[in-house]
Amino acid sequence: MNIEWLYPPCQSLNAAAGSAAQARQMQLTKPPGALGELENLAIRLAAMQGTEQPVVDAVWIAVFAGDHGVAAEGVSAFPQAVTGEMVRNFAHGGAAISVLARTLGADLEVINLGTVNDPGDIANVTRLCLGPGTANFTVEAAMTPAQYAAALHAGRDSAARAKQAGAQLYIGGEMGIGNTTAAAALACALLNETPQHLAGPGTGLDRAGVDHKVEVIQRALTLHADHLADPSEALRRLGGFEIAALAGAYLACAKTGLPILVDGFISSAAALTAERLCPGTAQWFMYAHSSAEPGHTRILTALDAKPLLNLGMRLGEGSGAAMAVPLLRLACALHNGMATFAEAAVSKKC
Amino acid sequence: MNIEWLYPPCQSLNAAAGSAAQARQMQLTKPPGALGELENLAIRLAAMQGTEQPVVDAVWIAVFAGDHGVAAEGVSAFPQAVTGEMVRNFAHGGAAISVLARTLGADLEVINLGTVNDPGDIANVTRLCLGPGTANFTVEAAMTPAQYAAALHAGRDSAARAKQAGAQLYIGGEMGIGNTTAAAALACALLNETPQHLAGPGTGLDRAGVDHKVEVIQRALTLHADHLADPSEALRRLGGFEIAALAGAYLACAKTGLPILVDGFISSAAALTAERLCPGTAQWFMYAHSSAEPGHTRILTALDAKPLLNLGMRLGEGSGAAMAVPLLRLACALHNGMATFAEAAVSKKC
Repeated sequence: MNIEWLYPPCQSLNAAAGSAAQARQMQLTKPPGALGELENLAIRLAAMQGTEQPVVDAVWIAVFAGDHGVAAEGVSAFPQAVTGEMVRNFAHGGAAISVLARTLGADLEVINLGTVNDPGDIANVTRLCLGPGTANFTVEAAMTPAQYAAALHAGRDSAARAKQAGAQLYIGGEMGIGNTTAAAALACALLNETPQHLAGPGTGLDRAGVDHKVEVIQRALTLHADHLADPSEALRRLGGFEIAALAGAYLACAKTGLPILVDGFISSAAALTAERLCPGTAQWFMYAHSSAEPGHTRILTALDAKPLLNLGMRLGEGSGAAMAVPLLRLACALHNGMATFAEAAVSKKC
Repeated sequence: MNIEWLYPPCQSLNAAAGSAAQARQMQLTKPPGALGELENLAIRLAAMQGTEQPVVDAVWIAVFAGDHGVAAEGVSAFPQAVTGEMVRNFAHGGAAISVLARTLGADLEVINLGTVNDPGDIANVTRLCLGPGTANFTVEAAMTPAQYAAALHAGRDSAARAKQAGAQLYIGGEMGIGNTTAAAALACALLNETPQHLAGPGTGLDRAGVDHKVEVIQRALTLHADHLADPSEALRRLGGFEIAALAGAYLACAKTGLPILVDGFISSAAALTAERLCPGTAQWFMYAHSSAEPGHTRILTALDAKPLLNLGMRLGEGSGAAMAVPLLRLACALHNGMATFAEAAVSKKC
C-alpha cells in the first residue's frame, strides 16, 4: 500500500454555479444578506455540487474508532475499554451519533481500525484490526508505515463508498480514548504551538490532569522533533488510526468532489493535516461546531474557519457535525424554495 | 376589551420532571455535560412539558404583520408597501418563514393586524384591520387603548389556537416596515437606555440612516417620557400592532404552559415587555438566534439569555427561531433515544 494518492490536487469548485447561486440569492424576497451565513452556505454548496440549486438530502456519516498507546500515560478520564464498548454502542444504535444519524435519515457506517478491547465482529461494523491501538508516541511513532497507509486507505475507502451511494455530504466522526491528546500533539506539530495552548480537559480531566497531558505531549514533541516538518510524518508519529483515516477520507472527498462537514477538535486536526498534505482540500470543508476544547480555536484560526454552531458540545463521534446538518438542509430549502421579488410582486429596497 | 388578563401569574414549571430528566442525562453513554446546551434544552423542555421525555414534533409558527406610523419619518430602507406585499408572500408560500415552516412540518398562521397597503382577504390569513398601521409615535401614542387591547388579544387568540391544536412549541414572528425603530424605542424605555446604544441598520440603513433613526427615537422618548415607567404604556405608545400581539401571545403561552422559542430583535423586545408585564413569563422562553441588530445584545443581557444560534441573520418573520427548531428536536431525540451506560454495558469515568 502506498500513500502517493494523497498528493494529486483536489477537484476545483464550480465558479459558474457559485455565481449563479449568488445572483439567485439577490433576487429572493428578503433584504440582501438578511439570511447571513445561510446565504454563504447555499452559495458554497452550489459551487461544490456544480448546480445553482444544491441539496443535502443524502448524508453519509462514517465513525472511525481506534485506540491510542499514549493512554498508558494516564491522559484520559475514561478507561481504554470504552473505545471498543462504544463501537458496539454505535452499531446497536445507542450512541449519540447513532440517534442523530437515525433522526436525520443519514447513512451511518462504523469502522473499527483497532482497539485494545476488541469487540469482535459486529454486524454493520467494518473491522480492520490494524493493531490493538497505536504505539505510545512518547516512546516511538504511533503507527508503522504500513499501519499508517492502511488507516489512510480506510478513510479513502469510506469516501468512495459514500460517493458510490450518492452522498451529497460527508461527515467523519471519531472515537478513541486518548485522542484529544493525539490531536493536540499533532496540532502542536502543524502549528508550531506549545501544548500549553492546545491541550484541554478532553472528556473531563481536572487541572492537574491537563497539566500532566501537557507534559506528555511535550515529551512526544521532543522525541519526534526532527521529523515533524513533514505533515505526513507528523500524522504517522503523533496521530492515531482514526485521525489518519479521517484525513484520508477528507482528502479522498476533496479529490472526488464530495462536500465535507467537519466536526469538532479531533476532526479539525485531521482536516488541518489534510489541507497541509494537499493544499486546496479546505475548499471542500464546511465547519459545524466550535468545540469546548481550547485547542480547537487555534486550529480553526489556521483554517480561517468559522463554525456554524457553538453549543458547548465536546463529544466527538461526528455529533457536532450531525447537529449542523439541518442548518445546511434549511439553507438549501430557502435558497431553492423562496420566491423572487418578481414572482411575489414585492417591492425592492428604496 | 380589557387587558387585565395580562397580569395573573404564569404556570409554574414542573421541577420533578426537570430533575428526572437531569438524572436521565447523567446515565446516557457520553461524558457528563458532553452534549453542552443540548442537555440543558432537554431538561428545560422536560420541566416545561411536565414529562421526563419531552418532544417538539408539533410546532406552531404565527407571523404577525402590522405597519408603523413612524415609517413616515424615513426610518426604513424599504417602502411601506412591502408589509402588505409580504403578507401575501407569507400566505402564498414564497417567504423565508413559509419555506422553513413547510420544510419543518410546522403549522404556519399569518395574522394581518393592519397595513397601509391592505392586501385584502387572503386565504390562510387572519385579517384584523386595527387600522392602516399605527400612529406616528413621534407625534402621539402608536396605539389607541382599543387598538392596543385588540393587538394583545390577537396574540392571545393565536396562543389559544396553538394550544388547541396540540402544539408543543410556540414561535412568534413579525413583519412590519419600521419595526426595528419601534422595538428599539420600546427597549430604550424598558431598559432605560439611549437610542445610540439600541438603534441599528434594520433592513439596511447606512450610517446616516442610523443616525437619523436615533434622532427619531429620541424625539419619541422625550414626548412620552412621563408614561414609560409602566411597561404596558411603553408598549402601547412605542410598540406596534405586531409587537403587542407577540407580547400577548407570549403571556398567554406562559399562562397556559406552552414553551416558547423567541426569535430575534423584535421578538425579544416583545419578550422583555411580556416579562416586565408578568414576571416569570421568561421561564417559558428559549432563545433561538442572536440578531445582527446591535440592540439585541442589550435585551438578551436583560433577559439573561444565550441564544442557540448566531448565523448573522437579520430577517425577522420568526426565521431565526425556525432555524433552531431542529436543534430542539435533536436535543429531545438524544435525550430520549440514547442508551444508558447500563443498557449499553459501557464503562463509566475512572
